[in-house]
Amino acid sequence: LKKNFVFKPVGYVRRPDAKHGADWRDLDSECEIEINPEYARALSGLKQFSHIFVFFVFDRRKKTQITVRPEDDPQIPRLGVFATGSPLRPNPLGMTIVRLVGVRKNIVTVRGLDALDATAVIDIKPFWGFEEETSNYFIPAWLEKLWKIYESKKEVHR
Amino acid sequence: LKKNFVFKPVGYVRRPDAKHGADWRDLDSECEIEINPEYARALSGLKQFSHIFVFFVFDRRKKTQITVRPEDDPQIPRLGVFATGSPLRPNPLGMTIVRLVGVRKNIVTVRGLDALDATAVIDIKPFWGFEEETSNYFIPAWLEKLWKIYESKKEVHR
Repeated sequence: LKKNFVFKPVGYVRRPDAKHGADWRDLDSECEIEINPEYARALSGLKQFSHIFVFFVFDRRKKTQITVRPEDDPQIPRLGVFATGSPLRPNPLGMTIVRLVGVRKNIVTVRGLDALDATAVIDIKPFWGFEEETSNYFIPAWLEKLWKIYESKKEVHR
Repeated sequence: LKKNFVFKPVGYVRRPDAKHGADWRDLDSECEIEINPEYARALSGLKQFSHIFVFFVFDRRKKTQITVRPEDDPQIPRLGVFATGSPLRPNPLGMTIVRLVGVRKNIVTVRGLDALDATAVIDIKPFWGFEEETSNYFIPAWLEKLWKIYESKKEVHR
């Protein structure tokens, strides 16, 4: 069995205003992904999808952990890192579903990408709904509670 | 900017009946992912989600392509590989949304994984719906047409 796999960047996030942290809950934040010009043609037809998955590398994390406590909230149970979106997972693979705003040559403009400036992007895939695969899906009670807290905070800021 | 990133397997697909090809449309197909025992605790809490994303490596592909024609169907336009789920993309990153059937120690049983036996798994993330991010999403006309064809083929086989 092969031991390791090498992934090369196909582009980089251009988001100069997000150097010191990006709020992943800010779905309105817009930024660009600059794709390596050799892959510009690989974007052909992408704009016919409204949303895409962006795969990137958590290239500035300092450590990994087997378990994490989301939001450092003592009310949330300690969880295995695979049950969370934490960057501390064994491989530094990040993925976000974003709105595709536009494609111009090798520049992809998206809304809602929670990645830092200069983050390496390793893949883009189209989002096509997945309703058939995920009908009747459910999520943990702790996550529903977390979302309610976010929602109430948003109300306060309005 | 860093040139390459090394991803290590966190486990392997155990699906001995899928050596010669797996039908990704068979959402009822069940298989196991054997996680490296050192990451068994990273699965803690995962079972509270009904569905998960499985990230794996297209480790048996023979080439890459910038553009592809899905299903080799002359009626479908030739597309950039990023606008498709083709394994011929620049990095051999596969992702499938699957039903989580069970977790027992380091063994994850899933339904609907379209990966070959012994495929390296590099990450698992929980699926939590993404309705807020993807409300009013749309897909290309060629894909809607393709789905209709699959649906009619299914009817024939019933």
